Amino acid sequence: MPLRENRQVRLVARPRGIPQAEHFSLVTKPASAPGKGEILVRNRYLSVDPAQRGWANDEGNYSAPVPLNTPMRALAVGEILESNAPEFRAGEFVYGWFGWQTHCVAAPDAVLRRAQPSALPLSANLSLLGINGLTAYLAFHGLGDPKPGEHVLVSTAAGSVGSFVGQLAHIAGCRAVGLTGSAEKAALAQARYGYQAMINYRDSTDLPAAIREACPEGNDIFFDNTGGAIADAAIRTMRLRGRIIQCGTAANASWTPVPTGPRPEREILTRRLRWSGFIIFDHIAEFEAAATRLTEFALDGKIVHDEEILPGLEHAPGAIAQLYRGDNHGKLIIAVD
Amino acid sequence: MPLRENRQVRLVARPRGIPQAEHFSLVTKPASAPGKGEILVRNRYLSVDPAQRGWANDEGNYSAPVPLNTPMRALAVGEILESNAPEFRAGEFVYGWFGWQTHCVAAPDAVLRRAQPSALPLSANLSLLGINGLTAYLAFHGLGDPKPGEHVLVSTAAGSVGSFVGQLAHIAGCRAVGLTGSAEKAALAQARYGYQAMINYRDSTDLPAAIREACPEGNDIFFDNTGGAIADAAIRTMRLRGRIIQCGTAANASWTPVPTGPRPEREILTRRLRWSGFIIFDHIAEFEAAATRLTEFALDGKIVHDEEILPGLEHAPGAIAQLYRGDNHGKLIIAVD
Repeated sequence: MPLRENRQVRLVARPRGIPQAEHFSLVTKPASAPGKGEILVRNRYLSVDPAQRGWANDEGNYSAPVPLNTPMRALAVGEILESNAPEFRAGEFVYGWFGWQTHCVAAPDAVLRRAQPSALPLSANLSLLGINGLTAYLAFHGLGDPKPGEHVLVSTAAGSVGSFVGQLAHIAGCRAVGLTGSAEKAALAQARYGYQAMINYRDSTDLPAAIREACPEGNDIFFDNTGGAIADAAIRTMRLRGRIIQCGTAANASWTPVPTGPRPEREILTRRLRWSGFIIFDHIAEFEAAATRLTEFALDGKIVHDEEILPGLEHAPGAIAQLYRGDNHGKLIIAVD
Repeated sequence: MPLRENRQVRLVARPRGIPQAEHFSLVTKPASAPGKGEILVRNRYLSVDPAQRGWANDEGNYSAPVPLNTPMRALAVGEILESNAPEFRAGEFVYGWFGWQTHCVAAPDAVLRRAQPSALPLSANLSLLGINGLTAYLAFHGLGDPKPGEHVLVSTAAGSVGSFVGQLAHIAGCRAVGLTGSAEKAALAQARYGYQAMINYRDSTDLPAAIREACPEGNDIFFDNTGGAIADAAIRTMRLRGRIIQCGTAANASWTPVPTGPRPEREILTRRLRWSGFIIFDHIAEFEAAATRLTEFALDGKIVHDEEILPGLEHAPGAIAQLYRGDNHGKLIIAVD
C-alpha cells in the first residue's frame, strides 16, 4: 500500500465568537488505513459553513464542540479510495462528515448521501445539493407550506441558503423579497435568485419602514437566518397565520448573556403565527428525494447555484471569518489540491 | 306581544388597561323585537373572559373595540324566545354573542353552537363547553400534539382554560405541571385539575430555578396564557421539538410600548421548537365535535368544571377587574336574574 500523506487543518485554539486563521494549524501526517467496516475517502471539495462558528466554540450548542488538535469538523465531498464497508465500494463519490483534510477514514454513518455523478459539477454536492440547498428546500417546503401567490421575506437572501430560497419561492409561485448587506448583493439577488425586491439593511436608517415599504401586503412566510433587529421588524409584517422559519441566528455574535429584544408573544397570538426552528441534520432521511428534485430544477434551468471556490487547503483557516465578513460570492468552498 | 324590559350593561368609558366598574353603566330599555331572519334570545348566563379587556380597549387587537354606549361584548347562553330564522325555533338553547344584557336580538351567525340540554348544567356551556374548555381542548390537541408520557407545563394552570388543560393532559397520559399565583390555587389545581406538581410564581424568588426543579426532565408542551417572565423561563426548559401554544399574554398589561425580554430565536432554532398562536374563534367549525368529546369526559367523571357564578347582572361591571385580580374560584359567570 502506498504511503499517503494526509494534510489536515486542525483547530488548535478555542475561539470566542468567530474563528480566525490563528485558531487553526496545517498539519501533515501519514494517512490512516481504513479498519474493519470503514472507508477511506479522498476529499475533493470542503465546505465552509456558518455553523462551524458554533462547532469551534464551546458554548452550549446543538452539537458537541470540535476537540482541540483535531481536524475542523466540516462537510466534504470525495471519492472512496478503499472500502471495508459492504455498502460502499472504491470509486464511489460520497458527501459527508469528512472534515477539513485531504484524507478521511470514516464509518459508514459519516456519509450523508452518495454524490451521484450527474451533469452538475461535483462541487454542487456542497452547495445546491449540500446542506445549503437541502436546507432551503426542506425548510421552505417542510415548515413554510408555501402556496402560490403568497408573500415571502428572506434574511441573508444572497447567502448560501437564501440564494436558493428566493428561487424556490419563485418556482412555488410566491413573491419573494430579500434582505442583504450590500447594494451589490441586492442587485445580484434580484437578478439571479428569484427576488422581486431587495432591501439593503446596511443602507437603511429605518429598517421596519424599509421592510413595510418592500412588503406592502405583509408576508406569509419569513425565512430567517439572522434573528435580531431584522426578525423584530419582519415579525411585525406577518399576515394572519404566517409561518416563521428560524434557520439561523447570525445577527447575534454571542448569546452569553442572552440579548434582549421586543417581546414576540403578542404577535404570535394575535396573528396566529407559527414559528419553527429548523436544523438540517434532523432531515437526513429526506436528503435523497430533495437532492433529486433540486437536480431536476437545475437541469431544467429553473435554479442557479453560485460558488466561490478557494484553491487549496491553505485557504481553509481564514475561510470562516471570510464567510462572516460576507464578501464571498456564492457558496464558499475549498478545493482540495 | 308583551312589553319586555331589556337590562343592559353598557361600556360607557374607554378604559386603558383593565376595565373597572366605572367604565360600565346599567341601562334599562324595552327589548326589541326580532326582525326578518333574526332571533330573540333571553340570556340565562353571561360569560366573563380575559379577552374582554382587549375588546373594551381600543389598542390594536384581533377584533374591533366595543363601541361606547353599547352592551359589553360577551358570550352568553340563553333560550330563544322568538325566532324569525328558519334554522332556529323558540325554546332552543343557544350559545353565542349575545352580550351583557338580559335580551338580545341577534342574527343567526351570532350563534356559535346550540347548547343541547344534557346531564350537565346549562352554565357548563360557558365553562367546559364554552370557549374555555373548547380552547383547552382544541389548542392542546390541535397545536400541542400530545403523546403519552410527554411533559406539559401550563401557565395560569388554575384559570378558566388551564384548569381544563391539566385534566386533558392527564387524560392524554402526559405529566402536567402548572403555574399559578397563590398557594390555595396551587393546592386546588393539584387536587382537582390533573397537575402532578404546581409552582406558585408569587412565592418564588428564582422562577427559572423553580420551573427547572418542578420539571427536571424538561417540557414537550408549554401551554402559555401569560407570556412575560414565565414564558422566558419556560421556553428554556423545552425539550427538542417542543411545542409552545400561545393562548394569551396576560402577563403584560400594556403592549404600548412593546415590552422587551430575552430573545427566543436561538432557543427556537437549537431546540427545534414550534411556537404557535391560538385564537379560538378560528375554530368554530370544530366546536360541536369538541363539545361532544368534552361532555363525554365530564359524564364519565374524567373531567371536572368549577364555576363561580355571580348572582345578577349588577355584578357584571366589576367582573373583569375581579377576573384579573385572580380571586375567583373557577370560571367566572354571571347569572341573569
